[in-house]
Amino acid sequence: MSNIKVRQSVVDDFPQLKELLKQLTSVGNCSKDNINNGIYDNIYVAYTSENIIVGCSTIIIEDKIIHEGGKVGHIEDVVVNNDYRGKGIGKLLINHCVGVGKKIGCYKIILDCDKDNNMFYEKCGFKPHGVCMRLDC
Amino acid sequence: MSNIKVRQSVVDDFPQLKELLKQLTSVGNCSKDNINNGIYDNIYVAYTSENIIVGCSTIIIEDKIIHEGGKVGHIEDVVVNNDYRGKGIGKLLINHCVGVGKKIGCYKIILDCDKDNNMFYEKCGFKPHGVCMRLDC
Repeated sequence: MSNIKVRQSVVDDFPQLKELLKQLTSVGNCSKDNINNGIYDNIYVAYTSENIIVGCSTIIIEDKIIHEGGKVGHIEDVVVNNDYRGKGIGKLLINHCVGVGKKIGCYKIILDCDKDNNMFYEKCGFKPHGVCMRLDC
Repeated sequence: MSNIKVRQSVVDDFPQLKELLKQLTSVGNCSKDNINNGIYDNIYVAYTSENIIVGCSTIIIEDKIIHEGGKVGHIEDVVVNNDYRGKGIGKLLINHCVGVGKKIGCYKIILDCDKDNNMFYEKCGFKPHGVCMRLDC
């Protein structure tokens, strides 16, 4: 694990991100040109010394009026390459995103997960807090 | 209810929004100047014919790589003035935000709520989907 680091993503990561995210869910027919370039500022990648991306996580910063014009971090789309699981890379990514959120001044960081992933996020310092509701368009 | 309408918020709504949001949670010592003006594009207000704001709801649009470079709507900070509850204003706001999300092309719209508010969102077409996890900074 000592050779795995985390950095903010860049546009050139797109092909690797696209492949990796297929392990999370459907990615479909998107191309680099379809993607808002601002998105890469929010994506953090875990990479090897050969710059192979083995995991990624997104944190979106929301500005609010409440809590003195406070900010909330939303963690999304966390995935670690199947071949690299069980090595602490997920925790490395979450800790990094939490650090980013804290540095920006978020008063809380939230995410939605399946009940199966509960324990992983509890190990990262999160606590269950309410229900996620979803409407498919 | 026929005299209550919904519109996107504007900077001049800040004093009314600040008062209203105090019914949701702590607002604290924030002033108009502290607030990123972009925030008003995401806030929708229910208002009377006298332009009194009686409810508000926020929808943040997230760009993703997954689902063909898809978009997700996040609904946040839904509140209806205590004196106007039970009149369908919450549903009016949620339906409006769902309409905004659909028009922009979101493939899903999500929100987090307490278990007590579950039923309200189910009436608006949402279904429970996983657990919300939270880390206080």
